Amino acid sequence: MKLGSLKGGRDGQLIIVSRDLDRYVPAAEVAPTLQAALEDWSAAAPSLEQISQALNAGERTDARDLDFTALASPLPRAYEFLDGSAYLPHVERVRRARGAEVPETFYTDPLMYQATSAGFLGPRDAVPVVSEDYGIDFESEIVVVTGDVPMAASVEAAGEQILLVGLVNDVSLRNLIPAELAKGFGFLQSKPRSALSPVLVTPDELGDAWQDTVLKLCLHSYLNGDWFGSPDAGQNMQFNFAQLVAHAARTRPLVAGTIVGSGTIANDDTSVGASCLAEKRMLEIIADGKPKTPFMAFGDSIRIEMLDAAGENIFGTIEQVIERHEP
Amino acid sequence: MKLGSLKGGRDGQLIIVSRDLDRYVPAAEVAPTLQAALEDWSAAAPSLEQISQALNAGERTDARDLDFTALASPLPRAYEFLDGSAYLPHVERVRRARGAEVPETFYTDPLMYQATSAGFLGPRDAVPVVSEDYGIDFESEIVVVTGDVPMAASVEAAGEQILLVGLVNDVSLRNLIPAELAKGFGFLQSKPRSALSPVLVTPDELGDAWQDTVLKLCLHSYLNGDWFGSPDAGQNMQFNFAQLVAHAARTRPLVAGTIVGSGTIANDDTSVGASCLAEKRMLEIIADGKPKTPFMAFGDSIRIEMLDAAGENIFGTIEQVIERHEP
Repeated sequence: MKLGSLKGGRDGQLIIVSRDLDRYVPAAEVAPTLQAALEDWSAAAPSLEQISQALNAGERTDARDLDFTALASPLPRAYEFLDGSAYLPHVERVRRARGAEVPETFYTDPLMYQATSAGFLGPRDAVPVVSEDYGIDFESEIVVVTGDVPMAASVEAAGEQILLVGLVNDVSLRNLIPAELAKGFGFLQSKPRSALSPVLVTPDELGDAWQDTVLKLCLHSYLNGDWFGSPDAGQNMQFNFAQLVAHAARTRPLVAGTIVGSGTIANDDTSVGASCLAEKRMLEIIADGKPKTPFMAFGDSIRIEMLDAAGENIFGTIEQVIERHEP
Repeated sequence: MKLGSLKGGRDGQLIIVSRDLDRYVPAAEVAPTLQAALEDWSAAAPSLEQISQALNAGERTDARDLDFTALASPLPRAYEFLDGSAYLPHVERVRRARGAEVPETFYTDPLMYQATSAGFLGPRDAVPVVSEDYGIDFESEIVVVTGDVPMAASVEAAGEQILLVGLVNDVSLRNLIPAELAKGFGFLQSKPRSALSPVLVTPDELGDAWQDTVLKLCLHSYLNGDWFGSPDAGQNMQFNFAQLVAHAARTRPLVAGTIVGSGTIANDDTSVGASCLAEKRMLEIIADGKPKTPFMAFGDSIRIEMLDAAGENIFGTIEQVIERHEP
């Protein structure tokens, strides 16, 4: 099934969306919000699934047309967002850009950081930024949402708690990153609010494309309407989602509704394009000694989506414009 | 007023606690949880304040005896915890321990990291850790809880959104830190769940001790019942809380219930003791070439509290035992 949230209240209003993303039914009879459903998933999921099946069969006369601009993030806020960096070609390129090596341990121990989870932008919301000087970039990624994961859970147990899958535009302020990372405590100001895809889906919606907690499909990014990249998320993922969730839970339990990210999707094959500007600029530096593609400016737009084998949009499209924020 | 939460449900049950910490009244008539009260503070605060005054005047016949072991964390979970490191003597000592300098920018730009906020241990809960080899340490700190803070808020506007003040034991797994920080993305596994003080209090409860968003009182730590340190939180705080909140909000809004931490309290004067084992071990290394105080073992206990000028306990005592966690 596919789940989303209408704007309204701090946690939105849970809706069940049809497979073709055309219609929806409010889920208030089961749970007011997605967070509430996740906290009581074994009770909520069967009821939501039943509504989903009836909706897809055209049997819900109360179904309404879906307006993507009326959508909040499926989880407008969450208690934890742990973003991995599982596609090592991305890590290699970004580090090469600043003359750093990729340590051997990166191939055996996932790279992951504590990201902000207090607010996610709606899938069609503008991205507010104070200054273009921050070096505004997008990052196209996949996320999973978990149930309650016990501390120090095994990879297998962690994998069983992957309840939903979606996309994220992990907005990055590149020019703030070097000074922030130099302080040694990770990202803070350089990673503002991100946007999740219009809907999150249960793994069964992905069919054969979901294998061993890896999503084997291409993720498409378009910058100002032009194709930017379509790397295959099934290639070069060094750690699968079960491993990423287990890594996140090594010294703490994860609560229902925790979001774990894959990191920017990237392949060894650079002809498939990239999922962020930083990588494209890196290749330009290698070729010409300097980048020619600028970071995003106010008014620039980014579109991120994933299609299934039949060419159908799975999660809906993230489509955002960068907007000047006046403090 | 002083606010706490009884155990029960994922967000606890809000209570109003008497100034002397002896009695409490449930706040369900105003808000079911502290998070709910914070989200509608301008409506909730006057009603809570009224109950608090009646409770302190002995006029609430429904007041009950407070049992600290029945308390959850005042905020059992939160959407964001941004922990600063505003006491530079701590930063200087910890960095000197690993042969690193303190950059000049640390005196003008706050050090702060995105911490886990998905779960806080109750003030008397055991701290579950898988292995003593992790290098278990406590960190005694002060925190503030904010209302909604707009993105890029001024220091003054940020300061106005400081609604509550409390303490935290920021548990640290020291032996996991070097490898994690070497990866460049900050803390994750090395910073498990922390514990807040039994109650959080409104700034007016602090009287003259709260000056320009700095808390001018000593924070006491006792390890296994023995005095460990009483640094003065009014000394050596390089950035006040208003500045820390503004730093956190530079590129993102903060939602009601956001927790911002001071970092480990430390003074230039080492005779006042320390607020974590790492600092004591550092001084031993400087004196003798090696540390003689071990990190915490299973069964070890830590007690953290702050007394007002009259010697009264302000926030209640954090009192925790380290406990082996069997995965």
